[in-house]
Amino acid sequence: MRLSRSLIPTLKETPAEAQIASHRLMLRAGMIRQMASGIYAWLPTGYKVLNKIAQIVREEQDRAGAQEVLMPTIQSADLWRESGRYDAYGKEMLRITDRHDRELLYGPTNEEMITAIVRDNIKSYRDLPQWPYHIQWKFRDEVRPRFGVLRGREFLMKDAYSFDLDYEGAVRAYRTMMLAYMRTFQRIGITAIPMRADTGQIGGDLSHEFHILAPTGESGVFYDAAFETGDAMDATDVDAFYERMTTIYAATDEKHDTAVWDTIPAERRREGRGIEVGQIFYFGTKYSQAMDFAVTGPDGQKFYPEMGSYGIGISRLVGAIIEARHDEAGIIWPDAIAPFKAAILNLRQGDATTDALCEKLYAALGADALYDDREERAGQKFAEADLMGHPWQMIVGPRGAAAGIVELKRRATGERFELPVEEALAKVRG
Amino acid sequence: MRLSRSLIPTLKETPAEAQIASHRLMLRAGMIRQMASGIYAWLPTGYKVLNKIAQIVREEQDRAGAQEVLMPTIQSADLWRESGRYDAYGKEMLRITDRHDRELLYGPTNEEMITAIVRDNIKSYRDLPQWPYHIQWKFRDEVRPRFGVLRGREFLMKDAYSFDLDYEGAVRAYRTMMLAYMRTFQRIGITAIPMRADTGQIGGDLSHEFHILAPTGESGVFYDAAFETGDAMDATDVDAFYERMTTIYAATDEKHDTAVWDTIPAERRREGRGIEVGQIFYFGTKYSQAMDFAVTGPDGQKFYPEMGSYGIGISRLVGAIIEARHDEAGIIWPDAIAPFKAAILNLRQGDATTDALCEKLYAALGADALYDDREERAGQKFAEADLMGHPWQMIVGPRGAAAGIVELKRRATGERFELPVEEALAKVRG
Repeated sequence: MRLSRSLIPTLKETPAEAQIASHRLMLRAGMIRQMASGIYAWLPTGYKVLNKIAQIVREEQDRAGAQEVLMPTIQSADLWRESGRYDAYGKEMLRITDRHDRELLYGPTNEEMITAIVRDNIKSYRDLPQWPYHIQWKFRDEVRPRFGVLRGREFLMKDAYSFDLDYEGAVRAYRTMMLAYMRTFQRIGITAIPMRADTGQIGGDLSHEFHILAPTGESGVFYDAAFETGDAMDATDVDAFYERMTTIYAATDEKHDTAVWDTIPAERRREGRGIEVGQIFYFGTKYSQAMDFAVTGPDGQKFYPEMGSYGIGISRLVGAIIEARHDEAGIIWPDAIAPFKAAILNLRQGDATTDALCEKLYAALGADALYDDREERAGQKFAEADLMGHPWQMIVGPRGAAAGIVELKRRATGERFELPVEEALAKVRG
Repeated sequence: MRLSRSLIPTLKETPAEAQIASHRLMLRAGMIRQMASGIYAWLPTGYKVLNKIAQIVREEQDRAGAQEVLMPTIQSADLWRESGRYDAYGKEMLRITDRHDRELLYGPTNEEMITAIVRDNIKSYRDLPQWPYHIQWKFRDEVRPRFGVLRGREFLMKDAYSFDLDYEGAVRAYRTMMLAYMRTFQRIGITAIPMRADTGQIGGDLSHEFHILAPTGESGVFYDAAFETGDAMDATDVDAFYERMTTIYAATDEKHDTAVWDTIPAERRREGRGIEVGQIFYFGTKYSQAMDFAVTGPDGQKFYPEMGSYGIGISRLVGAIIEARHDEAGIIWPDAIAPFKAAILNLRQGDATTDALCEKLYAALGADALYDDREERAGQKFAEADLMGHPWQMIVGPRGAAAGIVELKRRATGERFELPVEEALAKVRG
């Protein structure tokens, strides 16, 4: 993308409404704009990041054996009356009346709808298990939306649901999803820790939250250093993996157990702060019973399938990752989800040799590069590249261009390399 | 995907609610289920088709020079008061009140919102042109939703918007989008014809609709045979292309001009029926003036950018394509958007040799294949493969398997080929 032709409206000033780093940086880097309280438009760079995260989530859901569907945003109130949650949900549910005075709502989650879909289309135990998921916008009418996309009203969530024959199947689904989540976060390039959680409004017997470590996180977290190294994920068997994940110590301050904590060697104790970006639930037959979803078993007897649900806040992750990865100058994107691998900074726009080398780099990298082809001074180009957080900056001035040399800067470390064109390209491509 | 583990609930009976072929076939093939009047859930095969169409649309928008953003589904009523359309829009607009009694709505289109975004972030003529687009769910509260996804209430649309310096720029945007649309439909594998149209609610001076030819179409259409051959799209220059598109005769019955029609050689006259799947508009400064979006020009004077908007109904296209491509037995997908390239039909599930060959084919094709591994009789497998419309069927029985032979059936033509495994795979891969 050529910056001169892009809708990437960076800001020098920090907008007054933004209280936290990710919100400030997303506005300043031109990733999002607020359209109404807690409702955002995603501009090109923001949307690229959102999509890259969604794609990694999708690939790991598919790999786990889940299958993608897409449920609508608008739901019928009657569905929620079946589960008894219509009245229970309260003011966070955005309730809507259509032209025929039918009661609708903007879905805040989809347990009811997916249960109805599977119930109405599955008759036999032979059709189980079913693990559908979708990636769709949700709405929760927060009383006080804030912190940008970390607590927006319209937000993008991946929600998966598992329908299994029995308890053992449901446990396997739960553990498989935990593994899928940890792989997802690892591929994104951030450290996430699963922690035992309350089941809250969803209900059920077992739940884990996934917290990203970030100094500005909302919860205090206590954890074993094993989570930092990634060793914890080495298990190849899903049960061994789950065993390991749930025995290594990790807890939010609400659930912190000092007696257990004291048994951990001091050099492995870590305290930090976390941002919740996902949660998984096992809730047995709560919804299948409430919505009368019974299936005929091998013995001819009806039974209620065992269920779980599994959410990742995709739009929330964008903010959470920035909380975990930024400095004074701006965002530091992990390579896997950066909007562009590199920015090409032309320090002498209009100089034939410099322009020619920049065009050559841009042609070679294509959609992986943002080409800063504006007639702006070098200082501004450096500052905006740091702000936007591209993993690499390819700096091209007239002297280097004449010698066929590109200066590379690695955003995360500040390292610099002076390299011939092909070597520079190879390094950026990884 | 293994059919035994999939959420593809095919139906033998035709649902009573479905009046037209595409609606019947989408329900029977298990692509969609209605969740509320005019509101559908997309099951795995339906969602794959929807995504493949969206991806072709996206690639051609990018190629045309447009840039992807994502605007939210929920909009503020105040935005629509600025353009004067809030009251004008009538009951098709789904109006919503949030917990703080603020007036919101579910966006039926985005002229107002995108104008506000560009207005608030662009100050100079140097930042023009801007051609943003997004692919997002919209809602129109139709009084009588019907025909499945052809006239749903919640529907997926690609809408692009152009903001240009002057009339010439706007005309270039309009023509470039027409070319992008024709390339999009050609890649999908259907014949579409641009026809001069009224501007309706959007307003403006110039508009074309794009109609897909289908015997069950809503409008009668009269057109020159040049549109059938694809010759009309050979122009490489966008202006020459536009000239050709708008001089070859094509008109809906509403706009049909028998005087011109009579001048066309009889052997080139075609009459058929069409389904509208897209529309483009040039409307000048209608919205930039109403919403006071003025930019400083090279001469220091303020001016209002020239605008256009460009829609493709992506969910509607799924239904329209089926109207154009089906027979008594079911859907006939064009290769480019089929949910799977091939179905592998195992005619003797449980026979070791047959199973082994099917698994080999499935491993080779991966996500491109739907493997019918159910213990059902051959007749049912054939019928459901025809219904679902996979471009190829790979039929494997015990005799063929023992000889290493696969029977291929081409859905569109009924042609059959008996081929060794590698040749069969090569044919399916195209």
